[in-house]
Amino acid sequence: VPEKRYLFTPGPTPVPPKVLAALAEPVIHHRGPDFKIVYRRCLDRLHEVFRTEGDVLLYTASGTGAMESAVANLCSPGDRVLTVSAGYFGERFAKIGRAYGCAVEELRYEWGESPSADDLASRLDELGGAHAVLLTHSETSTGVVADVHALAAAAKEAGALVVVDAISSLGAVPLETDAWGIDVVASGSQKALMTPPGLAMASVSQAAWEASRRSSSPRMYFDWETTREAQSRLDAPFTPAVSLVVALDVALGILLEEGLEAAFARHVRLGRACREGAKAMGLELFSPDDDRSAVVTAIRAPEGVDADELVLALRDRFGVTLAPGQGVLKGRVFRIGHIGYYDVFDVTTALAAVELGLAEAGADIERGVAVTRALDAYEEAARV
Amino acid sequence: VPEKRYLFTPGPTPVPPKVLAALAEPVIHHRGPDFKIVYRRCLDRLHEVFRTEGDVLLYTASGTGAMESAVANLCSPGDRVLTVSAGYFGERFAKIGRAYGCAVEELRYEWGESPSADDLASRLDELGGAHAVLLTHSETSTGVVADVHALAAAAKEAGALVVVDAISSLGAVPLETDAWGIDVVASGSQKALMTPPGLAMASVSQAAWEASRRSSSPRMYFDWETTREAQSRLDAPFTPAVSLVVALDVALGILLEEGLEAAFARHVRLGRACREGAKAMGLELFSPDDDRSAVVTAIRAPEGVDADELVLALRDRFGVTLAPGQGVLKGRVFRIGHIGYYDVFDVTTALAAVELGLAEAGADIERGVAVTRALDAYEEAARV
Repeated sequence: VPEKRYLFTPGPTPVPPKVLAALAEPVIHHRGPDFKIVYRRCLDRLHEVFRTEGDVLLYTASGTGAMESAVANLCSPGDRVLTVSAGYFGERFAKIGRAYGCAVEELRYEWGESPSADDLASRLDELGGAHAVLLTHSETSTGVVADVHALAAAAKEAGALVVVDAISSLGAVPLETDAWGIDVVASGSQKALMTPPGLAMASVSQAAWEASRRSSSPRMYFDWETTREAQSRLDAPFTPAVSLVVALDVALGILLEEGLEAAFARHVRLGRACREGAKAMGLELFSPDDDRSAVVTAIRAPEGVDADELVLALRDRFGVTLAPGQGVLKGRVFRIGHIGYYDVFDVTTALAAVELGLAEAGADIERGVAVTRALDAYEEAARV
Repeated sequence: VPEKRYLFTPGPTPVPPKVLAALAEPVIHHRGPDFKIVYRRCLDRLHEVFRTEGDVLLYTASGTGAMESAVANLCSPGDRVLTVSAGYFGERFAKIGRAYGCAVEELRYEWGESPSADDLASRLDELGGAHAVLLTHSETSTGVVADVHALAAAAKEAGALVVVDAISSLGAVPLETDAWGIDVVASGSQKALMTPPGLAMASVSQAAWEASRRSSSPRMYFDWETTREAQSRLDAPFTPAVSLVVALDVALGILLEEGLEAAFARHVRLGRACREGAKAMGLELFSPDDDRSAVVTAIRAPEGVDADELVLALRDRFGVTLAPGQGVLKGRVFRIGHIGYYDVFDVTTALAAVELGLAEAGADIERGVAVTRALDAYEEAARV
């Protein structure tokens, strides 16, 4: 395996050198004045990124912890929740709901389909409403980014609480927590927030706070009020991953200096470059060929190639890590993440490696066109 | 505030440079071959440190998450659990038990007292047994290290499951998970394991597995079986804090190279040095003056000195961070942690700063003796 590695997975994502350097700083005490300065700034920056005036709670956990916190704080056994799922992560929400004894209803699509707000409205109508609707913003397993604005509106219309898994979308594609009336946005540090995994966040609306006071589900570590109360004193109820918080603060500074709108535009261009390059070499996209899906591109393995083997070969031969297919897509697709600390030369490197890997595997692809097409598409997109 | 900082808190603790350097390495994908090598070695090393042949489950969480996992996986609402508490962290266990609807009984001591196995046996006898006994090994708030060997034996004798919070003790003082029949040992990365906070571990005995299959408490993130199944494939159910795992692996390598017995002996000597130095300048210990309490030394603030103000002054004047008193001890004691990546010159630096800080605060202490007495005590201890 080559010494030099390239991380092109949709999470963890590449971490900027300044953020890595922050991780290597001597550890500071989480209750001392040094940490409080960083903690306050980090929480303020999270509010900006979440686009909310409400609370943003910070957990030491994988992003799934923030998803679970939503169910544990909002729901009691027997509460009807409706999950909208079209892939691996939508199904995870349903699993969490069932683990907490909720009456889980699923609006289920084939993996790779895009959920529709009309379907959601009809389903909620049939059900006579739901306590909460659990949505996946960016379905990392398929590359689909759902129209959460429209979906949230349909759920609100039916009187449901709206919970959004924005783990791979926050900071990459537009998400308006307050303006779209989303009650809980769950996210994680390791995607567009350009920090290693280990921190999870949950925004909590006023309506969500009210519901949480009625929830009988047991919880302590993920209890919202426990964390809110501590954060109000710039404290944490349990020793937080201080190094990751210090790193996240630096990363959020980089993101906000670029500007959220500029970051969103960059991700659109990266997505376009990746799709156009892949198509140019004759590959078939699995994820939708539209600008909404700007987070990860899922590509079908060509005839006679096992996607898992391709992923392993690229890593062994070139030090390039792509993501394999998950669940029903295992072996059938490979995925190129283009999230966070990422520019067009990351796209071209990923495509160049795929081109060479597929050629070595004997696949029938067009050589010598993908990289240039990707560069062109990136530039064209900037002019639109 | 001086640029150079000294971290002498009982968690987070100082992190060795090699471990900090590992944190700054580019992030790797948690499902790729690079990570699996590290992950396997790290899990193997955890088994050595826990001294168990059973499962050790690794969570991205504060140590409290591992404590909660024990209650969530072992207990159903109404189950009687007995917590033995003599400080802040023992009380946390009771809180978790209540959050999960357990019938929590408390064997409660004054903060700073050492729990006794006879008391535990009598209490269990009175109660007619308990489903689980929740113990704190090192009560970081008071400096007391409980005789978990004897306490666990009393609990087993009464047929209870034994759960031990070993967050600040594991790797610093002897703990024999299997030999002492402990069903669950909960720990964290940020104490004697010399890694920043953010990883929690729980060992699970055969009896604990059996009990977990009968527990009706809802859980997903902290569900043991979910993590065990993934770990058996060298996978993690949710994106783990890869950087912290890489760092923990390096830190465990350092600890095991020193050897656990040598590390335990070093902590005993550090504790003796700290206590002897503090007493030499005329200070009164709050934590017991015995070799068992080798993790953190709690010292009473002298007449007329507020311990919280002393802690802040030492940080502002000298960049030295000690820990203030918690709960009922707030303002009354300060605490010097001597855990993990720590040698006798850390003790003498802490004592020198305390000496100067107290002198500046006008306290009536003996100058010029603490450091030398600490050095002597450290050497004498080695000869015993």
